[in-house]
Amino acid sequence: MLKGISPIISPDLLKILMEMGHGDEIVIADGNFPSASHGERVVRCDGSGTTELLEAILPLFPLDSYADYPIALMQVVPGDTVKTPIWDDYKAIVADNASEPAAFEEVERFAFYERAKKAYAIVTTSERALYANIILKKGVVTT
Amino acid sequence: MLKGISPIISPDLLKILMEMGHGDEIVIADGNFPSASHGERVVRCDGSGTTELLEAILPLFPLDSYADYPIALMQVVPGDTVKTPIWDDYKAIVADNASEPAAFEEVERFAFYERAKKAYAIVTTSERALYANIILKKGVVTT
Amino acid sequence: MLKGISPIISPDLLKILMEMGHGDEIVIADGNFPSASHGERVVRCDGSGTTELLEAILPLFPLDSYADYPIALMQVVPGDTVKTPIWDDYKAIVADNASEPAAFEEVERFAFYERAKKAYAIVTTSERALYANIILKKGVVTT
Amino acid sequence: MLKGISPIISPDLLKILMEMGHGDEIVIADGNFPSASHGERVVRCDGSGTTELLEAILPLFPLDSYADYPIALMQVVPGDTVKTPIWDDYKAIVADNASEPAAFEEVERFAFYERAKKAYAIVTTSERALYANIILKKGVVTT
Amino acid sequence: MLKGISPIISPDLLKILMEMGHGDEIVIADGNFPSASHGERVVRCDGSGTTELLEAILPLFPLDSYADYPIALMQVVPGDTVKTPIWDDYKAIVADNASEPAAFEEVERFAFYERAKKAYAIVTTSERALYANIILKKGVVTT
Amino acid sequence: MLKGISPIISPDLLKILMEMGHGDEIVIADGNFPSASHGERVVRCDGSGTTELLEAILPLFPLDSYADYPIALMQVVPGDTVKTPIWDDYKAIVADNASEPAAFEEVERFAFYERAKKAYAIVTTSERALYANIILKKGVVTT
Amino acid sequence: MLKGISPIISPDLLKILMEMGHGDEIVIADGNFPSASHGERVVRCDGSGTTELLEAILPLFPLDSYADYPIALMQVVPGDTVKTPIWDDYKAIVADNASEPAAFEEVERFAFYERAKKAYAIVTTSERALYANIILKKGVVTT
Amino acid sequence: MLKGISPIISPDLLKILMEMGHGDEIVIADGNFPSASHGERVVRCDGSGTTELLEAILPLFPLDSYADYPIALMQVVPGDTVKTPIWDDYKAIVADNASEPAAFEEVERFAFYERAKKAYAIVTTSERALYANIILKKGVVTT
Amino acid sequence: MLKGISPIISPDLLKILMEMGHGDEIVIADGNFPSASHGERVVRCDGSGTTELLEAILPLFPLDSYADYPIALMQVVPGDTVKTPIWDDYKAIVADNASEPAAFEEVERFAFYERAKKAYAIVTTSERALYANIILKKGVVTT
Amino acid sequence: MLKGISPIISPDLLKILMEMGHGDEIVIADGNFPSASHGERVVRCDGSGTTELLEAILPLFPLDSYADYPIALMQVVPGDTVKTPIWDDYKAIVADNASEPAAFEEVERFAFYERAKKAYAIVTTSERALYANIILKKGVVTT
Repeated sequence: MLKGISPIISPDLLKILMEMGHGDEIVIADGNFPSASHGERVVRCDGSGTTELLEAILPLFPLDSYADYPIALMQVVPGDTVKTPIWDDYKAIVADNASEPAAFEEVERFAFYERAKKAYAIVTTSERALYANIILKKGVVTT
Repeated sequence: MLKGISPIISPDLLKILMEMGHGDEIVIADGNFPSASHGERVVRCDGSGTTELLEAILPLFPLDSYADYPIALMQVVPGDTVKTPIWDDYKAIVADNASEPAAFEEVERFAFYERAKKAYAIVTTSERALYANIILKKGVVTT
Repeated sequence: MLKGISPIISPDLLKILMEMGHGDEIVIADGNFPSASHGERVVRCDGSGTTELLEAILPLFPLDSYADYPIALMQVVPGDTVKTPIWDDYKAIVADNASEPAAFEEVERFAFYERAKKAYAIVTTSERALYANIILKKGVVTT
Repeated sequence: MLKGISPIISPDLLKILMEMGHGDEIVIADGNFPSASHGERVVRCDGSGTTELLEAILPLFPLDSYADYPIALMQVVPGDTVKTPIWDDYKAIVADNASEPAAFEEVERFAFYERAKKAYAIVTTSERALYANIILKKGVVTT
Repeated sequence: MLKGISPIISPDLLKILMEMGHGDEIVIADGNFPSASHGERVVRCDGSGTTELLEAILPLFPLDSYADYPIALMQVVPGDTVKTPIWDDYKAIVADNASEPAAFEEVERFAFYERAKKAYAIVTTSERALYANIILKKGVVTT
Repeated sequence: MLKGISPIISPDLLKILMEMGHGDEIVIADGNFPSASHGERVVRCDGSGTTELLEAILPLFPLDSYADYPIALMQVVPGDTVKTPIWDDYKAIVADNASEPAAFEEVERFAFYERAKKAYAIVTTSERALYANIILKKGVVTT
Repeated sequence: MLKGISPIISPDLLKILMEMGHGDEIVIADGNFPSASHGERVVRCDGSGTTELLEAILPLFPLDSYADYPIALMQVVPGDTVKTPIWDDYKAIVADNASEPAAFEEVERFAFYERAKKAYAIVTTSERALYANIILKKGVVTT
Repeated sequence: MLKGISPIISPDLLKILMEMGHGDEIVIADGNFPSASHGERVVRCDGSGTTELLEAILPLFPLDSYADYPIALMQVVPGDTVKTPIWDDYKAIVADNASEPAAFEEVERFAFYERAKKAYAIVTTSERALYANIILKKGVVTT
Repeated sequence: MLKGISPIISPDLLKILMEMGHGDEIVIADGNFPSASHGERVVRCDGSGTTELLEAILPLFPLDSYADYPIALMQVVPGDTVKTPIWDDYKAIVADNASEPAAFEEVERFAFYERAKKAYAIVTTSERALYANIILKKGVVTT
Repeated sequence: MLKGISPIISPDLLKILMEMGHGDEIVIADGNFPSASHGERVVRCDGSGTTELLEAILPLFPLDSYADYPIALMQVVPGDTVKTPIWDDYKAIVADNASEPAAFEEVERFAFYERAKKAYAIVTTSERALYANIILKKGVVTT
């Protein structure tokens, strides 16, 4: 544990967050996301939910102001009637942390998988909510 | 995730719990325990507390009925005035899960470190409570 | 060994089953399947047959309800007169475990090989029956 | 699979059996034996029982005629009332395979653990019988 | 060494032969074959000739009855006047071992190299005869 | 880079600082310290001096209040006339960061080497000052 | 440390500089560059700025006189109003070190990323200046 | 060291020369060749020049009589006025060692790089002469 | 293969022979020797007998003239009536190769095992003769 | 290659020389020294002699002025009549490079081996001279 860093962030995850540079992406995945098959660099955070992790990570770096959408969500599969109330939590957490408004993009399920493969890392959680996967694009650290 | 297994248990931890045999020990360590320097096989569970993990692990195997004390706690350092209310939680959880009563042993701090080095694995948590480290000795699985 | 998990499942296999996410596939292969040359992640279960493994694995996760065919079999090569009574066993085991009916797809031999290469893992068995290979697609764990 | 070799023997186990030389020992361990913590070279045979493996292994090499006891069993812990009928099965299998009578030694539990650490390999099984662990010392292959 | 297995087969080679499944190929290469540059999985058998190895390997598995040519030889380069009497030895050894006749295919030198790259393994020998390379395709083990 | 973390701390160093637990030690070594031969876990920080690193590290964790001397310096070799003005800088930096006074211990050169071998990590610097090596013992993180 | 080599160059970096041959490129990246995701061979120099490193590296090898532009900078993204005064420092340092004038090329941001992927190594720094990334192409060492 | 083998050949290089088969190529590179970036299998021979190595290697295997040009040199870049007297030394050494005349091919600089990438190994030297790189194609060893 | 080197010597073995220095020992072991459990560096030569290997190795280096016994054999176990005619072959081969007479030492079985553990390498063979193990101590290469 | 560094020093050796700190030792070994069996960190410099390497290394760091003997030679074995003229070369080279006189210690053969095991690295050469092994103890780099 370190002073000023959320204790739910593991040493590996903290290292990965610090290694990321401008434009690199990280996926915070729910418990059903096929993380192990889609990412070479996978950090297990089985004891956390996605909202807790988002709250722990966002204070550590800004989102990418060069990108149109620094945040991406997995679009609900057509025909699926699942609701995604967790998205509202995400938007509130982002609004609380970001210095400027950040737009959310919705990405079709299989396109989301392909994008996850190219992300710098995938963080797994034990999140039970469906469609709770979220991608963050890191911005420029200036302070 | 798997049906019937707590989602806070990671795949690595589940594998380790299954690999353990009669008499092998596992340490569930609090956030200040020097896990990385004392265990070769360390599983990070930074998002969980020790009580949650104890509750998730105990349904998976019995404690060792061949040993006098199948459970060990780290003794409070003489002169330290810290209280350890979490120990009562541990005792309640064990009582809920064990088929027969299991005795708790208190082990002096540095002796506890030496025993942790010989354990099959150390599980790290983000537990804030002090003296929350606990060692479990696995018993014989018969069912 | 763990309580509630079939002892024929090895720690490595259990870890792999837990790592799999929605849409990941696993191949349970018979003794003649070219597993080592087709899978990077191969789990040896030489002491088990395919039906025993199917019975041990299916209670651990649901099949994929998003897919038309969550299960695939290797089609008999045209001209081959071998019978496949083991398929009936498979169907009975699936019916016993699945909460909803699951359709079986038959895949041509070399297409099956290509699909096996992309599976998350291949489990080898010492099954003597021919055409006993079976692919399972994991669904969403919700409980 | 290979002609003339029992299909419950995995490729790794077969390689290990062949690598062993005169005087090397192998442990066939029951499902509760702490294999992973006591052997660097561990072969998982979770789908098999100890008697099946003994029957599969003994045709492949002779026992050590230079040793007083080429076979060792784990002694029942004093006070334990468990019976060990599986030992009779072992003796019958050995009698069927060995060209000359082979004496069985009983080794105290913790001494057995120490000896297992020095064995060339430990084979794990899913054997439910207690005290089913058995050590074989390989003899000179002359044919 | 093991009873019933030729002592010129190394433990690694035996493991590889057992890992191979239906349709996998193995190259037995002469001393001048560029094995190290063409195979990721190379087994050195420098003390043996190709005929000895063929005699040691063929009793262990059947050739592939699903393939038109379960055996391939490297075609003599046009203009090369070398004779290949060792091919007759091969045909006699195959005839002695196979339960049914097996057809030999001749493959052009560079096509042979490409096929060797895809083989499950290449076995090197110290065979002095030229054009002594031979590929075997494993069949279905049914006994 | 991360917000709130000094950019002279590398991702590896940050991970190591977070992995350390109560009582673990870290050596900040000068440019002449035999780091590579005395530590298995060595982090190179060649672009920094020891004072800069001390200033960057101390805000991240408390020193060990359970130890008599949470900080150690390498004693000047008897007969050596070198002065160590950098020690005053160290004391000022510690005073600025610590919540309570921390005592400095002087350790004989070869005893210092032995202690460095047991430290969790050694951080190398390009510090030109002599006798600039310093050991920190991590305390309990409570906030 | 070695006589005549700047102490801010780590042993790994020195080895890499020496391994590079005619035409190989090295990227000196600022603190926001996505180094870890773009280079397989990454050397962390978190305690240094880019100008310090450039000054330390240039005395060790000549720039490539066979190339039109032995040096490349990352072009400012259109619309970005950031100034790049550090480029003037670079030009002065190059002029001080090079035996003959060396031309600077400006490369579009994403083309720069692609070129960085092919570079022999990426050196990370804690440089705060934006657009401070610079690529050097090594020339022929003749003395 | 071994009797009959030049002591400037390292054990690794000798192993590589022996592993090479008919048609495999080896590059003997001068001190400025980008070896580390172009070869996965690189042997450092920094204390030797290219002519010494050529003299040490050629007695160990014949050149490829099946190829039109068993030897390749790097063509002088158009416009470069460097002379290549070392090529005459090469021709003399080859004439001294080869049982039959061997033709030299000149390969354009970047084509030479591509061919070096496919070679079985690149041997680096500290050769100061420019354009001293040479590729040898191994022939059939018959004695 | 290389000119002048016996083709039964593998590239790995040749490398090891060359790496050995004055006083290093190598064990040529028969097919029953427990090589895998006694040597970290084991070279498999399953296709060769011990006499063939001795004949192939001795031309490559001199025996140690500083040692009283540069050669060691495994003493027959008291009570064992096995004859060791192969020792005469060894003596004849040594006499043919050594420039000066070399004395043979007989070492008790378990002392031989301990010495084998310290040898630089153990070479396994498929030698059927008993007590055919032989240790060679390398001398100073002067030519 | 780098400007100002002898081209006979390999990148690995340069890295090792730079990693060494005050009091670390390096062995420059002759061609008969058992380097591979005595050092975990071995750098092959087969193309160089010991005097050339000594001349290349000494300009890079000072010898240890804290030690009585910063240089050690291997004592001639009693009874051996070999002369060691190379020692005079060593003394001349040291005198040319050292800023202050450095004393040479002679160490008995087997004691020398033990010391070599503890050295930071052993550099092998193809030096033919006997008793040419030399150990250097690195001093404090102050410039």
